[in-house]
Amino acid sequence: MWKTVTIIGVGLIGGSIGLALRERKLAERVIGVGRRAASLRKAKRLGIATATTLDVEEGVSEADLVVVATPIAQIVDQVCAAAPACRPGTLITDAGSTKGTIVASLNGQLPEAIRFVGSHPLAGSEKSGPEAATADLFEGRVVVVTPSRTTRKGAAEDAADFWSALGATVFMMSPEQHDAALATTSHLPHLLASLLAGATPRADLPLTATGWQDTTRIAAGDPELWTQIFLDNKRNVLKSLARFEKTMQRAKAAIERGDAKALDRLLTEAKAIRDAVGS
Amino acid sequence: MWKTVTIIGVGLIGGSIGLALRERKLAERVIGVGRRAASLRKAKRLGIATATTLDVEEGVSEADLVVVATPIAQIVDQVCAAAPACRPGTLITDAGSTKGTIVASLNGQLPEAIRFVGSHPLAGSEKSGPEAATADLFEGRVVVVTPSRTTRKGAAEDAADFWSALGATVFMMSPEQHDAALATTSHLPHLLASLLAGATPRADLPLTATGWQDTTRIAAGDPELWTQIFLDNKRNVLKSLARFEKTMQRAKAAIERGDAKALDRLLTEAKAIRDAVGS
Repeated sequence: MWKTVTIIGVGLIGGSIGLALRERKLAERVIGVGRRAASLRKAKRLGIATATTLDVEEGVSEADLVVVATPIAQIVDQVCAAAPACRPGTLITDAGSTKGTIVASLNGQLPEAIRFVGSHPLAGSEKSGPEAATADLFEGRVVVVTPSRTTRKGAAEDAADFWSALGATVFMMSPEQHDAALATTSHLPHLLASLLAGATPRADLPLTATGWQDTTRIAAGDPELWTQIFLDNKRNVLKSLARFEKTMQRAKAAIERGDAKALDRLLTEAKAIRDAVGS
Repeated sequence: MWKTVTIIGVGLIGGSIGLALRERKLAERVIGVGRRAASLRKAKRLGIATATTLDVEEGVSEADLVVVATPIAQIVDQVCAAAPACRPGTLITDAGSTKGTIVASLNGQLPEAIRFVGSHPLAGSEKSGPEAATADLFEGRVVVVTPSRTTRKGAAEDAADFWSALGATVFMMSPEQHDAALATTSHLPHLLASLLAGATPRADLPLTATGWQDTTRIAAGDPELWTQIFLDNKRNVLKSLARFEKTMQRAKAAIERGDAKALDRLLTEAKAIRDAVGS
């Protein structure tokens, strides 16, 4: 389907893209670009890439498609470094968890002939690194592709085809819509899971069970990555947190006044929402 | 090990006790007591009990051990109904998620010759009912046994032996210590998971992924059961919630002022606590 796909950043997400492309025979060549020779050796050994290089320009020079799968703080720089070295018509996308800032920062920065559109695969794990990569990471998962007013014709559709080929279901929406929704469905859950873990005294840990374990699982994620996400999507995260605080104050008041009916109503509505998603 | 064990309430917990006793050949007879004939027929068909009855007094008349595994609002009544019909020396325990109110309410209410001690198996599931029961529910899990100043000699030790025989690790502490710790390790996580699910607009549900799913999983639990728990352990739940709110305000302030260092510190400490528990 593609002749050459270049993946910049061969961690969990980039590595899984490489494995999926190769297992599904979707690309003749998969070039892995990274900043450390050791990671690239690992990526090659794991079958993530057919060739690797530390040099971005060299890595993208023959690419039909470039996927930037670095931590979000580096995405804009990596796209800007890659674009001038690409052939005309090359499609560049990314895999960052926030989209507004990245897409806005790239606006007007790229050569005319290069097409860029933002992507966010809603797939991940509390694990990280190429060792955690799997060929089926995107199967049955959602990927959001975020065209903006300046996105070139066809770029969003081509990116959608790419993610679909890896087994994902693709939604399209603006970067702003994406960031508002993800603040609620991903960033707030992560923040709360971390705060809950952090608020548990170590002496009480032997008395945790599956409930605590499920609720705090994602608190094991990479602190640096999540700090970037919270700050990049600051306005929306604070909005979601404010909405959560309101619900929390309602529940607190219901507990304080011993209002079983109000509590039952809150929990019943929450259960209905949770049940709608399934395990 | 026991001649006759009577289980009052054959749902997830009571049913799993029955299955474990029979699979491990720990009791000659397991009597299931319930309030609905249909549940009892189901329990018998699933192999949870060797005999069943709707009549508490009949059910406990030959028991060496009685386990009350009903929702917490009914535990005190069920123990009071069972105790006068038991033979001298019978041990009664329960499986309620809160202990302070239950143990205090039973103080001085039981015949001299009957021994009672509270228990709380930290095992469960967002599922409920006898169909969800499994023989290995307690294997490797923690059970807290909560002797008070008035607990008869040997009762706590005998209850501990019982839960150990089902494969659990037993901790002993006072009912008050139990309720303070569990507010943090179990009741607060449940409340937050429910509030998080409840604060997610239905339109955003297609954009949830494994993070949201893990963090909200226990919100699928039984609203009635959890309303009882929050109100029964009100004082401790509010205390844990207040501690959580403080951490939340710190995080919120760090996001507002764009303080990457403070956020990273919060997330790193949370990760260390989460990693200490394991998956």
